[in-house]
Amino acid sequence: MTTADWIAVDWGTTHLRVWAMGPGGQVLARHDSDEGMGALARDGYEPALLRLIGEALPERGRVPVIVCGMAGSRQGWAEAPYTAVPCQPPGGADARQVPTADARLDVRILPGVKQPQPADVMRGEETQVAGFLALNPKFDGVICLPGTHSKWVHVSAGEIVSFRTFMTGELFSLLSRQSVLRHSVGEEGWDDAAFDAAVTQAMGRPAGFAGDLFGLRAEALLTGLAPETARARLSGLLIGMELSAARPYWLGQAVAILGESALARAYARALEAQGVPATLADAERMTLEGLRAAHASLKETT
Amino acid sequence: MTTADWIAVDWGTTHLRVWAMGPGGQVLARHDSDEGMGALARDGYEPALLRLIGEALPERGRVPVIVCGMAGSRQGWAEAPYTAVPCQPPGGADARQVPTADARLDVRILPGVKQPQPADVMRGEETQVAGFLALNPKFDGVICLPGTHSKWVHVSAGEIVSFRTFMTGELFSLLSRQSVLRHSVGEEGWDDAAFDAAVTQAMGRPAGFAGDLFGLRAEALLTGLAPETARARLSGLLIGMELSAARPYWLGQAVAILGESALARAYARALEAQGVPATLADAERMTLEGLRAAHASLKETT
Repeated sequence: MTTADWIAVDWGTTHLRVWAMGPGGQVLARHDSDEGMGALARDGYEPALLRLIGEALPERGRVPVIVCGMAGSRQGWAEAPYTAVPCQPPGGADARQVPTADARLDVRILPGVKQPQPADVMRGEETQVAGFLALNPKFDGVICLPGTHSKWVHVSAGEIVSFRTFMTGELFSLLSRQSVLRHSVGEEGWDDAAFDAAVTQAMGRPAGFAGDLFGLRAEALLTGLAPETARARLSGLLIGMELSAARPYWLGQAVAILGESALARAYARALEAQGVPATLADAERMTLEGLRAAHASLKETT
Repeated sequence: MTTADWIAVDWGTTHLRVWAMGPGGQVLARHDSDEGMGALARDGYEPALLRLIGEALPERGRVPVIVCGMAGSRQGWAEAPYTAVPCQPPGGADARQVPTADARLDVRILPGVKQPQPADVMRGEETQVAGFLALNPKFDGVICLPGTHSKWVHVSAGEIVSFRTFMTGELFSLLSRQSVLRHSVGEEGWDDAAFDAAVTQAMGRPAGFAGDLFGLRAEALLTGLAPETARARLSGLLIGMELSAARPYWLGQAVAILGESALARAYARALEAQGVPATLADAERMTLEGLRAAHASLKETT
């Protein structure tokens, strides 16, 4: 394997993604594992990293390792305290340097971003925002990051102005797999019309959520509601409730959705029904672009 | 043990409760176990019942066994098809007779109640409603049954007119124990002021639910939100959202809450803040009264 010029790392709760980067910023190799924060004790981070990129390290000399994500949380590798909004996405100069046993590693963990009121936090998404802004420096609008904890981020003049997190993805996972709805909601399959109707229903009457949920179970029992229809309706109820609360973010704004998954496309579909066109961008590419920007700013400051 | 005149059974998803009843309707003995529907195959019901009340059976002769709850579902002991609203709570004449290996048992399972539109079902609660009506025959109003799947039942002229189920209790359990909020929400403790504020917040802005949830996590990280406060807020957000959707049920109505637990008192507190006084009644007693009424109506018809 070619020796890396620097290492880019996205270290989340359930995943670890690592890129060995060449001197011109090109990707020499990409590796991943499931050794996320949730699977690691504090002394497990360095070995987990070396397992993935040990071969890309030179025999001597120090290689910068730029890390974003939950590795910087209090329960992570080392805490990189949050930067408060309004702020530019944290760059290399804001990163926390972490001592390592292997002298070839120069680890820097990027901070997350916090918002005092309403209380909110992000770790990792700020680097995706940085990547999006690196590619679209004049963007002024809202970035939507669908996922376990989906986020809406208002960006203006290169700064994160405010943001809001919704537990939509985690609710979908818990409800479809661990609640009584697991008997009624399919593991796969989809129904666009059912999704659209559920989005409309939840946006119009969001309070009905807990009752509409049980309605899925009752319809399955009484009229044999199809599992894929129940799946699309559950997703629509959750995304509709989120869109209703996030209206101040997307109404009249340019919206970019970071993600190209079925979930990201569902958000785009729901927004389009509200007359809001959204562009989709590759979330992993944005992470890497954000880490590239942080590495570049680190070189400038050192 | 004295021989029972008849046996009353409340057979839910996670519990089995059995009363050996005397000829004057008095309780001779009460037993329970965790052999609910979820723990039993079809051929496991009769043995589970005999383990609890075998000693109360006579050497010869047949003893009526009146059963309510999930034992009557399609996945239960034997399906007792739903009765449709509007209807009186099902009585002995509506029960499904189930063949048994032990000739001393004369098992009758009470049906649940269904509502075609909006689709909804109950199994077990209809017997609690029957018990409440047996004790309060002139009641006209709304019965609230807090729990895993809380229900609001509109009762008029002795009939169940309509009802609505909310997955509030199951959401609380999943969110407090299995979501990211498990780190922030205490297993016990309470904070009345936080509960009241969260009820108000959710009733005023129910769509914000998924965002308000993550706010609990963020406040725990940023300002050290106390676990008991987070617990009361989570409960308040869920109950407030339910009250908002159930407004057509409780507004201007006489409300009886079946339950005397902390949860039932929380519902009463939230309703009182809306200017709606509610009376609390012992849920287990209502179940037994409902089974008594079904047994009495069975005797009349045979």
